[in-house]
Amino acid sequence: MRMPAEGEWVLLLHRTGDKYLVRVEDREFQSSMGVLKLGELRKLQFGQTLKSHLGEEFLVLPPSLPDFFEKLKRAPQVVLPKDAAQVVAHTGVGPGDVVVDGGTGSGWLAIFLGNLVRPDGRVYTYEIREEFARVAEENIRKVGLEKIVTVKRRDIYQGIDEMEVDLVSLDVPEPHRVVAHAEKALKVGGYLVAFTPCVETLQQLYQALRGGRFAELKTIECLVREILVRPGATRPSTEMIAHTSYLTFARRI
Amino acid sequence: MRMPAEGEWVLLLHRTGDKYLVRVEDREFQSSMGVLKLGELRKLQFGQTLKSHLGEEFLVLPPSLPDFFEKLKRAPQVVLPKDAAQVVAHTGVGPGDVVVDGGTGSGWLAIFLGNLVRPDGRVYTYEIREEFARVAEENIRKVGLEKIVTVKRRDIYQGIDEMEVDLVSLDVPEPHRVVAHAEKALKVGGYLVAFTPCVETLQQLYQALRGGRFAELKTIECLVREILVRPGATRPSTEMIAHTSYLTFARRI
Amino acid sequence: MRMPAEGEWVLLLHRTGDKYLVRVEDREFQSSMGVLKLGELRKLQFGQTLKSHLGEEFLVLPPSLPDFFEKLKRAPQVVLPKDAAQVVAHTGVGPGDVVVDGGTGSGWLAIFLGNLVRPDGRVYTYEIREEFARVAEENIRKVGLEKIVTVKRRDIYQGIDEMEVDLVSLDVPEPHRVVAHAEKALKVGGYLVAFTPCVETLQQLYQALRGGRFAELKTIECLVREILVRPGATRPSTEMIAHTSYLTFARRI
Amino acid sequence: MRMPAEGEWVLLLHRTGDKYLVRVEDREFQSSMGVLKLGELRKLQFGQTLKSHLGEEFLVLPPSLPDFFEKLKRAPQVVLPKDAAQVVAHTGVGPGDVVVDGGTGSGWLAIFLGNLVRPDGRVYTYEIREEFARVAEENIRKVGLEKIVTVKRRDIYQGIDEMEVDLVSLDVPEPHRVVAHAEKALKVGGYLVAFTPCVETLQQLYQALRGGRFAELKTIECLVREILVRPGATRPSTEMIAHTSYLTFARRI
Repeated sequence: MRMPAEGEWVLLLHRTGDKYLVRVEDREFQSSMGVLKLGELRKLQFGQTLKSHLGEEFLVLPPSLPDFFEKLKRAPQVVLPKDAAQVVAHTGVGPGDVVVDGGTGSGWLAIFLGNLVRPDGRVYTYEIREEFARVAEENIRKVGLEKIVTVKRRDIYQGIDEMEVDLVSLDVPEPHRVVAHAEKALKVGGYLVAFTPCVETLQQLYQALRGGRFAELKTIECLVREILVRPGATRPSTEMIAHTSYLTFARRI
Repeated sequence: MRMPAEGEWVLLLHRTGDKYLVRVEDREFQSSMGVLKLGELRKLQFGQTLKSHLGEEFLVLPPSLPDFFEKLKRAPQVVLPKDAAQVVAHTGVGPGDVVVDGGTGSGWLAIFLGNLVRPDGRVYTYEIREEFARVAEENIRKVGLEKIVTVKRRDIYQGIDEMEVDLVSLDVPEPHRVVAHAEKALKVGGYLVAFTPCVETLQQLYQALRGGRFAELKTIECLVREILVRPGATRPSTEMIAHTSYLTFARRI
Repeated sequence: MRMPAEGEWVLLLHRTGDKYLVRVEDREFQSSMGVLKLGELRKLQFGQTLKSHLGEEFLVLPPSLPDFFEKLKRAPQVVLPKDAAQVVAHTGVGPGDVVVDGGTGSGWLAIFLGNLVRPDGRVYTYEIREEFARVAEENIRKVGLEKIVTVKRRDIYQGIDEMEVDLVSLDVPEPHRVVAHAEKALKVGGYLVAFTPCVETLQQLYQALRGGRFAELKTIECLVREILVRPGATRPSTEMIAHTSYLTFARRI
Repeated sequence: MRMPAEGEWVLLLHRTGDKYLVRVEDREFQSSMGVLKLGELRKLQFGQTLKSHLGEEFLVLPPSLPDFFEKLKRAPQVVLPKDAAQVVAHTGVGPGDVVVDGGTGSGWLAIFLGNLVRPDGRVYTYEIREEFARVAEENIRKVGLEKIVTVKRRDIYQGIDEMEVDLVSLDVPEPHRVVAHAEKALKVGGYLVAFTPCVETLQQLYQALRGGRFAELKTIECLVREILVRPGATRPSTEMIAHTSYLTFARRI
């Protein structure tokens, strides 16, 4: 296994499940299991362990994208991984695709999609609130996708600059106001997906989609329930998220 | 828009939603809306329309991966897109990853993953039943992923050849028999995912995982419900798939 | 155990799960397991068995209400037991209550409620379609609730005759048109419940309820999934009913 | 409307949804909306209002069973109304039935069933923990079902005293230990229902039921999701209870 580079993000995983995302730098880090000297990471390979001053061992791992997601700065409302993943199932978005993403927020969805379209695809994400745009750019750099994902300080209700786009993804309050722009931006056969928490928004969106060059309209909701598998006590978790957003898909024709 | 190449797979989409996956070749094709001369596709660009002998127009599109999935030869039990997509959410599998897939079946899951790891990643899918291996290879060629996805006539219960693997995905009757092999094959920080319809298999799998070098064990089920958005009559679909498989994730430490 | 009376409805249950609802009378009955002479029921007590001409044994049981429900003549759209039961949970409807039921259909819901308000309560169920009213009356007699449940050939959109009612239950296309009538008919503290498949009906209903003397408005949906518990193969059923109706509750103040 | 009797439980409902369960007695009660003199209830009829010292009006209502349920002393784990109601759907339990209930806890389920079997049925509920038995008896008196529901300080694992029972309901850690007793106690055609949170308990229960005189074995889980119907913002609630218990039904043959 290789060694982490200076300044690289590294996951520290304790056998209890506690985990931390830290950088290789000269710094002491206060974990729940004692102080960790992050400078010592320079002498370690991934797969080896870093000891706290209390002797507790943390496994040193290259972070996966889900690791980053747990630690990114979040906007209050955010598309969840369970829902973002359904976009892969319904649109086949993948390497090389060009994506326009409306309503950057914390950049979470743009990063999720950016990771999938690497190395030749691009994600252009539109945000008019400067404070969100800045948080998103920081998150994108942290994950190392700054060459793939671009934050644009533009109002997606006013138009989309890109053409021949494979996917337009919308997490904005009034997605029906973007339908005409998406129609122009999308390549024939390309997909639009919109995340909408309320039924009324859904109804407005359908009216706009039915008036445009879109087919294969479909709306789903996705529920994920955890199952706790314990010796002699296997059962579903007692709580779950009952609703985030409806997902609406449409295809440019 | 470009023109389809000779022999290339092309999607024909009618405004009623009827669709066909055909190749550019000298052949007459009997659709539900009249006979289509497929040779005429040579004169068309994507985005243009092909007329049947009844004058019905079909839009000519480059097929998306979901289009292929609907038309592939299927094995009786198959991981569904809604579930396959959760693997993206939980493991971050993406471009460049190396994946070992156990129990090829019709190759559907291997293709789904192969599409995501393009162009530098690879999927090695294990299958001992010759008839399935052959169907899978045919499906992989159809989708154009033959350089990414390799079908191996090997019993995954006997071992995994690959090393430093990012993801091991298991859709076999006894996934607990693959845990020790996956432990050797996976890189530290890599993920295992198993699809298991029954609770008893889940219990055996956890016993094996708890005895090995795995952490972050988690099991979920994913339910997707369609919402029918119609003027004045918006409501969930009356039927849904209530269960396919439990998805168990574990991480190599 | 007592013996069934002449003409009484009797449940015949085979160990395979096959079951029939028959009457004590001079008749031959063709079951899936051979011919049964129903006259022989006169010599049997409940709990004993009746043999077919092939020697197959059927257990003779007094039918439960769920047995009747499976065998009643049904209207195409019907409130399901899982949903009807939620009315008990949310309103506490029980012995002695007076219920007005709008949209009799096959009478199923009226019978369900009639069984619960016995012996001193009453259900008045409104139906304007003569063919449904007749089927409902037949079903009510079959179950033996003709003294409890009365079918009224009246349009509930035009008004409700009863006063000081404990519960108004609505399974009609436009429940908002009954809200003002229900307000007059219900006793203070009484409940209204409406079964509505579509969101738009729900929205109209809430507008009417908010304009009237109602409080504690609440809407739920109820999903029931079967679990198949088999040796070594315990798992949820692969299919389930994804939607019947939204249930809206409101309380007269 | 009648007047509440001295010492009777009365529901006070404010238009904000705040509600209190109080008795007619000489006492001052501190509500969230000011002090209420409960002695003044003697001069009021149900349907009239009681004013706090701040001038806030509370509607005076006869409490429904759900009102009582919200205010009863609860044991930590309790069968929820959504699940208890499914027993009505699957067994048809109703007026006149004799029920044996194992594991009284706070008495909630016994009260739910007691209310349904009134006035001629009976519920015998078994509890060995004295502190629970006392809380349950207090709750039963509060609801006014002391003539219908009897708490027995007996271990239901040791046996059931009653015979010709219509329903045995089990909310105990090891329901399989009660199956043989239930077989003796139940009348032919009667039902057993067991509430079990874990799959392993379910598997043991089925083994016992399959070894006994039971048919029509069925297990379900019931999920209830709230829908928030607000002008322009109709959507499901963001959280829900994902699991309480599996419900298993079996019928004595």
